[in-house]
Amino acid sequence: MVDAGVERLILVGGVTQTAQIDGISAAGKNPEVMVHTPSADLEIVEYGDTVLSPVVPVSPSGCPSPAFVTRAARELHGFELTAINAGLAEPTGTSTKTLGTQPGGDIRDTTPVPNAKDLFEDSKKLAQKLPDSAIAIGETIPGGTTTALGVLTALDGPTHVSSSLPKNPIKLKRDVVEQGLEKSTIDSATDDPIQAIREIGDPVLAVVTGLAKGALDTNTEVMLAGGTQMVAVATALRKLGSQGYGNQLEIATTTYISSDETAKIKESTDRISTNLLVTDPGFEQRNHPILKPYIEGEAKEGVGMGGALAIAKQNGIEMEAVRQRTVQLYEKLV
Amino acid sequence: MVDAGVERLILVGGVTQTAQIDGISAAGKNPEVMVHTPSADLEIVEYGDTVLSPVVPVSPSGCPSPAFVTRAARELHGFELTAINAGLAEPTGTSTKTLGTQPGGDIRDTTPVPNAKDLFEDSKKLAQKLPDSAIAIGETIPGGTTTALGVLTALDGPTHVSSSLPKNPIKLKRDVVEQGLEKSTIDSATDDPIQAIREIGDPVLAVVTGLAKGALDTNTEVMLAGGTQMVAVATALRKLGSQGYGNQLEIATTTYISSDETAKIKESTDRISTNLLVTDPGFEQRNHPILKPYIEGEAKEGVGMGGALAIAKQNGIEMEAVRQRTVQLYEKLV
Repeated sequence: MVDAGVERLILVGGVTQTAQIDGISAAGKNPEVMVHTPSADLEIVEYGDTVLSPVVPVSPSGCPSPAFVTRAARELHGFELTAINAGLAEPTGTSTKTLGTQPGGDIRDTTPVPNAKDLFEDSKKLAQKLPDSAIAIGETIPGGTTTALGVLTALDGPTHVSSSLPKNPIKLKRDVVEQGLEKSTIDSATDDPIQAIREIGDPVLAVVTGLAKGALDTNTEVMLAGGTQMVAVATALRKLGSQGYGNQLEIATTTYISSDETAKIKESTDRISTNLLVTDPGFEQRNHPILKPYIEGEAKEGVGMGGALAIAKQNGIEMEAVRQRTVQLYEKLV
Repeated sequence: MVDAGVERLILVGGVTQTAQIDGISAAGKNPEVMVHTPSADLEIVEYGDTVLSPVVPVSPSGCPSPAFVTRAARELHGFELTAINAGLAEPTGTSTKTLGTQPGGDIRDTTPVPNAKDLFEDSKKLAQKLPDSAIAIGETIPGGTTTALGVLTALDGPTHVSSSLPKNPIKLKRDVVEQGLEKSTIDSATDDPIQAIREIGDPVLAVVTGLAKGALDTNTEVMLAGGTQMVAVATALRKLGSQGYGNQLEIATTTYISSDETAKIKESTDRISTNLLVTDPGFEQRNHPILKPYIEGEAKEGVGMGGALAIAKQNGIEMEAVRQRTVQLYEKLV
């Protein structure tokens, strides 16, 4: 377990055109506004409100983005936010360290992340210089589990991913990945994570992997705050030779991911020898319509939610306080 | 007095080539590294450490940047930081909202801030959307008091400014401003603050003025955290028709500015009907070599120091704790 107190969440936002494939993501009211979701998520976590984003980040059914949960935990604990632009498509009112400006392409096309190597290297260099002794890293990118499946498949890693939809469109995702791999320079599999991300991944994966690598290399503990996208990152880290980190690295996720049978996250993290920390926000204990979709399997994770919950819990913050604040934040906004 | 609790410091960084004039600024070890100062200051306030900056921000005599004091107050109080890039010249490891990418020119040349209007308008729009009920706005720009003198002169406002040097090179500043005005489109004076900033100001003044205007227009209280540069901003706001704000606007500075006879800040703020809040960090009560230059009149203010001290004090934080933490932060780094 990452046991130094985590005081900073690095939140990496970007988009991939893969998210525009019909039925692949619930991270936005509809495909047209989905490109705003990461920009809006960063605003929610920084300000507890939208600023420049014209949309509030919700799913088609109206399920609030996990950004509200992360913000609630952040208000209660006070951890710092470092927002990173890995390739956003729309303006955000949040201050970001810009590591990339190019949105990721559709993985069915050739080379969806041409700048993967630069993104990785620049992120690594930044993280090597951070003064923190422990960091959490989260992500916000609609369509991210599909690109994660692409990278996991290319790396011959665990190939189970979750979904922001209650019913995981896993068949569709596998078809998309298969089409993408056919267009790629990857024959059957590769041991090069940067090649995998460049050919069948997304810009956020490049940045999160680079940040984690740079942090681990300089003895900073890393909490990967997320679900199966973080399994792809941890798999990439193992391929990069990061075998010996042991307790320095963990994935912190929610019970909604760990209880998702299609995600098989414990099986995956065991396979890649990475600790898994699961936190239960107990949404079923608060009978509220905006939390109900989570109980029914929507959203599940994202925007650092699992890590934010873990930080809150480790610091003695009651999950009831997180639930209450999440509802307040959302109701104030809508 | 701005009496709603200020929970956010918006820190605006940029450079002006005016700072390269020999003898005009102490905001950097020497003129070559001075261009790094704003980027480094933003890192100190965000991380308590340098990240990408190759230099620690100190004056030629070794006086630590006010950034350390602002960071100390921030650690003790916990206020949020929103860093803004108004035209930095060097990379920073701090996440910034980029409103400008163009450093300001030497005011002795024509039109040192060609994008003043855009900077002002974009900043105004951003601030109009911020959810906060009160904000502090600070600046970091070497040479900023000279450009402030330029704007104050052009606007026929109060024309006394302070200096980061123990002995204010006011004659040199007036000469520089005079040369600049001769090259400008301004005949004797103007009532248009954007024209004044474009012709004889700097990009940070454009952004701070825009942010303050947007905030005030949407009933957000504004604490201008700084010295005589903030007098230039408040003068610009008055010219923009912001007469009726009363207690919604104040300048929060340090005793080192209020006791600087060349700055005449109380006389200036009275003239422009703006409240002045002065906070004494009491550095003379802690006999420490790195605080001594402040007692002797160096640095005085900057990087939001006066506002950060005011926020700390208003929230019951002892100045002794701020002094202690300032020394610790600096010693850890050097």
